[in-house]
Amino acid sequence: MARSGKGNHVQYVWIPVIAALLAVPLGFMYVSWNKAGEGAGLYSRQWQPDAVFSYWNPGEFYRSVDTVQGVFSGEQCVQCHAAVTPGIVKDWRLSRHSTAAPGKKPVYCLSCHGDDHQDLHMPTPDVCAGCHAIQHSQFVDEKRYGFPSHALAMERAVDARHFVDKPKPEVTSCLQCHSVATKCDSCHTRHRFSAAEARRSEACITCHSGPPHPDDETFFASAHGKIYRQEGENWDWSKPLRKGNYKSPTCAYCHMAEGKHQVADKSIWKFGILEINPDTSANEVRRRAWIKVCSDCHEAGWSRDRLEELDTERKRAWRKLYEAEDLIKDLRSEELLYPAAGERPLYPVDVIEKLWPRERIGFYEGQASAFYNVSPIERDYFDMWYFDNLGAYKGAAHGAPNFVTAQHQKMDQALKSIKQQAKALRTAGEQERLYKERVDPSALWKQGEYTEYNKEHN
Amino acid sequence: MARSGKGNHVQYVWIPVIAALLAVPLGFMYVSWNKAGEGAGLYSRQWQPDAVFSYWNPGEFYRSVDTVQGVFSGEQCVQCHAAVTPGIVKDWRLSRHSTAAPGKKPVYCLSCHGDDHQDLHMPTPDVCAGCHAIQHSQFVDEKRYGFPSHALAMERAVDARHFVDKPKPEVTSCLQCHSVATKCDSCHTRHRFSAAEARRSEACITCHSGPPHPDDETFFASAHGKIYRQEGENWDWSKPLRKGNYKSPTCAYCHMAEGKHQVADKSIWKFGILEINPDTSANEVRRRAWIKVCSDCHEAGWSRDRLEELDTERKRAWRKLYEAEDLIKDLRSEELLYPAAGERPLYPVDVIEKLWPRERIGFYEGQASAFYNVSPIERDYFDMWYFDNLGAYKGAAHGAPNFVTAQHQKMDQALKSIKQQAKALRTAGEQERLYKERVDPSALWKQGEYTEYNKEHN
Amino acid sequence: MARSGKGNHVQYVWIPVIAALLAVPLGFMYVSWNKAGEGAGLYSRQWQPDAVFSYWNPGEFYRSVDTVQGVFSGEQCVQCHAAVTPGIVKDWRLSRHSTAAPGKKPVYCLSCHGDDHQDLHMPTPDVCAGCHAIQHSQFVDEKRYGFPSHALAMERAVDARHFVDKPKPEVTSCLQCHSVATKCDSCHTRHRFSAAEARRSEACITCHSGPPHPDDETFFASAHGKIYRQEGENWDWSKPLRKGNYKSPTCAYCHMAEGKHQVADKSIWKFGILEINPDTSANEVRRRAWIKVCSDCHEAGWSRDRLEELDTERKRAWRKLYEAEDLIKDLRSEELLYPAAGERPLYPVDVIEKLWPRERIGFYEGQASAFYNVSPIERDYFDMWYFDNLGAYKGAAHGAPNFVTAQHQKMDQALKSIKQQAKALRTAGEQERLYKERVDPSALWKQGEYTEYNKEHN
Repeated sequence: MARSGKGNHVQYVWIPVIAALLAVPLGFMYVSWNKAGEGAGLYSRQWQPDAVFSYWNPGEFYRSVDTVQGVFSGEQCVQCHAAVTPGIVKDWRLSRHSTAAPGKKPVYCLSCHGDDHQDLHMPTPDVCAGCHAIQHSQFVDEKRYGFPSHALAMERAVDARHFVDKPKPEVTSCLQCHSVATKCDSCHTRHRFSAAEARRSEACITCHSGPPHPDDETFFASAHGKIYRQEGENWDWSKPLRKGNYKSPTCAYCHMAEGKHQVADKSIWKFGILEINPDTSANEVRRRAWIKVCSDCHEAGWSRDRLEELDTERKRAWRKLYEAEDLIKDLRSEELLYPAAGERPLYPVDVIEKLWPRERIGFYEGQASAFYNVSPIERDYFDMWYFDNLGAYKGAAHGAPNFVTAQHQKMDQALKSIKQQAKALRTAGEQERLYKERVDPSALWKQGEYTEYNKEHN
Repeated sequence: MARSGKGNHVQYVWIPVIAALLAVPLGFMYVSWNKAGEGAGLYSRQWQPDAVFSYWNPGEFYRSVDTVQGVFSGEQCVQCHAAVTPGIVKDWRLSRHSTAAPGKKPVYCLSCHGDDHQDLHMPTPDVCAGCHAIQHSQFVDEKRYGFPSHALAMERAVDARHFVDKPKPEVTSCLQCHSVATKCDSCHTRHRFSAAEARRSEACITCHSGPPHPDDETFFASAHGKIYRQEGENWDWSKPLRKGNYKSPTCAYCHMAEGKHQVADKSIWKFGILEINPDTSANEVRRRAWIKVCSDCHEAGWSRDRLEELDTERKRAWRKLYEAEDLIKDLRSEELLYPAAGERPLYPVDVIEKLWPRERIGFYEGQASAFYNVSPIERDYFDMWYFDNLGAYKGAAHGAPNFVTAQHQKMDQALKSIKQQAKALRTAGEQERLYKERVDPSALWKQGEYTEYNKEHN
Repeated sequence: MARSGKGNHVQYVWIPVIAALLAVPLGFMYVSWNKAGEGAGLYSRQWQPDAVFSYWNPGEFYRSVDTVQGVFSGEQCVQCHAAVTPGIVKDWRLSRHSTAAPGKKPVYCLSCHGDDHQDLHMPTPDVCAGCHAIQHSQFVDEKRYGFPSHALAMERAVDARHFVDKPKPEVTSCLQCHSVATKCDSCHTRHRFSAAEARRSEACITCHSGPPHPDDETFFASAHGKIYRQEGENWDWSKPLRKGNYKSPTCAYCHMAEGKHQVADKSIWKFGILEINPDTSANEVRRRAWIKVCSDCHEAGWSRDRLEELDTERKRAWRKLYEAEDLIKDLRSEELLYPAAGERPLYPVDVIEKLWPRERIGFYEGQASAFYNVSPIERDYFDMWYFDNLGAYKGAAHGAPNFVTAQHQKMDQALKSIKQQAKALRTAGEQERLYKERVDPSALWKQGEYTEYNKEHN
């Protein structure tokens, strides 16, 4: 019995094993089928790129134009383009690319773009990695730390369901910066590709500015930024980002110390998007890495106090956010959010929600877009979290005190408005309940005080 | 009969002819009578300038002060002012004005201000045109393209009814920039009047900044601006704005290419104030003029894609604006706007509206000021259109992606708020209707269901 | 009788005299007892500083760390720190401190920090006053003019009841700037402590930026700022702030003309926080002091007109503020503010309010914090006054026209919202009144029209 029973079991074991073995290639096929669509990423079949996307994500979308025919040498490229686009050629001449190492050729146009003018390509990070392997591997290493990170920026702006669902003209302004993952000239602008350029804070600000990431505004308003604004022009930017070389730090000095192309590994507060526990041992390791950088100029005690103050500010901000979130959660459980889950237009990629409608609160509930097709109060909470809160974080982290004040005032105002709306929704809900009672008085008579009395006394 | 009949007709013909001939001089007299008032422009009799206006619009208002007496030579002016206002004289000495062409005198103070110290004047563009005729004629040529334009800026800030009606202390901040039409030192600051200065983006930002025209903010946040911020200091600004002379463009490089003092002729989207059809042949001509400028550095395909993406962003923005506008139009037709047309205080220049009251929606319904004396929801729409929308346009046009995101978020918020207000107004209107029915029940009984039944069955 | 009566009176006179004599030392004792607490200032027992406060207010809170032991000479400090914190030492070497006057020693680290590494201190203004007595005495002289002023900045951020009551993580961002009163390196950054640095506008902007004091934004958006942005880099900043030395003024050029460390004595509008009478003789004296500075470059008439226009803008702004304030005062007298005075959570230092509850309107009613624990409409008024209004003032005062427009638009929006809320509160109050009448109809019958008729006719 035991044996034959065991034999039966062994036979049944094959069912899940085979299912699992089949699931893997089927999964790959599904993803591959998806990716064969018009767009890029897991949901590629469900969106179409605008024409300009071909430049933001050249690896996926760029197709060479065929206005000029022929295969050219590096010198020929330069000769012709010196007349057609002289600025570009001037930049290249000023770059290290144009200077041949002894016994070697310069890095000509064709090294990155190819030599066939009818099959040109725009270089992706892989192309740059041919020579700059260390920087590229550091950059790719960011993926280990998840998002936010440079290396995953484009993937998250394509694969993320709320990006797939978003109107493409509005995605464009996102992609313009998220393309930091798909091309290196976001920081090292073409065609000088200068390290000196990327060491300066201006290299970061086209993307790192404005809500929800006012790094430009907060750095340049800080004491660091003020010194930089005054005299940065005259510093020797050919020097590496190292102790004693600069009077004041830049973005890269702290976040990419010694030129390391990995900005995710020191991150404690994750861009301000989550409340984290700053006191884990992993975060203490990160904190010490920060203090090491700060100690290039500052006393260690000062640096630690400032970082702890940042934690304090974060906790204060999250207290405000949680107060708002709790209000909305209550409204949700009392069915006072309009439109309610089932009444909202679903996004194309909302498959599970079609079967199991869910209310949305906050970005990180794992749902597509928390900012479209939600009730007004939820949208306000999203804005409070995404714009006001993240701005406050950047102000506190970069030493821009006025920014912290202004953003906390905005959070106060948002919380006030959310409280007012919650109260109004609750009052309206109460009125509706009373109205229903009036229209259908049976409920009142059947269950009311008088009925109870009658039940007992008649 | 025929003859005399014909004669009669001929006699009557003289009536409209004479009326028309009289109308022309009467029209001129009316305008002239108006213009003879305190202010300037068509409505001059209806407003008084603040004292400071004499400097913003010197041709109209400047009266010389009489603290110093005498007629002076150029050298005498310089000698005295080197002690009184040395900064000004230093600037003049650094200007081309101070360098005499062979066999000619320098352009001394008196060339622009006159030589009689009791009858000094502040130079208007006409004065500058004495030497800089080409620039001035290009500048004046803008008028052909209507407003927005530099050349019509002051006229529109004086003749426009909403400016006449506006409290003068608030008009001052408008006039300070609109004076670009009435004096040349808005861009070429006194007394160096340098072309090099005006080539730089800073020349534009005192006026072209802040809502509703954040050109400063959007340029300096763009990739162009970032490069400029990094190294513009070291560029040779004596060079003309021409291919290959500058690594990155400035405002003037693109909008006043080759130094042409005409910025209106390439304008497609008209500052973002209107939805236009970008696909007319006239706009295709303009688009090609843009692509020509972009092609100094960029691939033509890239430039065209970017411009098309701008059209896409605009259409998205206008979809949001129209959604708001439609809501307000519906409220208007349902008589739910408070105060209603007839209840609003009229502006002094609102003559026609006195007889024929009209609700206001949006700036371009041809009415005076859409932002005073309107209902709250209309004001919100005005702000959405004027501040949020125009800012989004500038962000998209200048390549400042974060600005587009932020401004579209503001538009979303404004639209959300307008929807909420519309709903509240409609609910309040419904309640009022129900209340009236209750107070005057005759309407109910006379026209209600029961009455209809009785009419048929009794 | 008269004598003995007089004698009696004389005897009673001693009672208030003795009471007064006792009151003085008791008052001192009370203050001293208060100040012996954890924090600083009059309410020191009622708050605890965050750790980082020890650097913002070193005189009160800094305690030396004891990582290194020993007493060192100046040369020894420099030798060791050139390796530990080379940037600091470089800065010191570039400073005048490192250059010994003939027959004197340089100003070494120990001159300011002490020589015992286990008892180091952070220098307070008193330490700097040892050499820079004139500047320090000018700075201290500001106290005569009250607040706002640099010299009283920290005191008002500690002693003020609303700061004591505020959550400390939010006070941190205030203190970071208010520490201008307790250490000199807010403007002269360590360790170069350069006068040239403080002459530039960047020296001020870490604190003077953002709402409610957008001096950074308004200066750099002005015509002055635009010229500074263009060419300030190349000016000779070693020159004193004096006529003819600079093409365009900086913050310090006007506010600290000739390097005078007293910025409060020319202030007419007091930061915009109050409506003042600009036409007093004291303010005419201040105005002339301004015109004197403006006249370094501008015509006196122009300067006076601009200053008068500033008064005009202020009056317009205050008209809007008063309209809002009157609305709230009416609501208060009609008992329509929720939470009402008695229902609000009191602040720890609100002793008198515990006995005599008061509604709050505006900062300057002499109450603790007008921005926490108030009703929503009051908070909106506070924000209108503190952020929108003060920003408009700075825009008008610094010649940033777009800022004035934008801030007045914000004031218009705030006023609109306050009016809407007032109307809603009044409607809600009316409904509550009607409801009470319905629930308790006796009021209606006892005092109604019918009752009055009966009283007279029965």
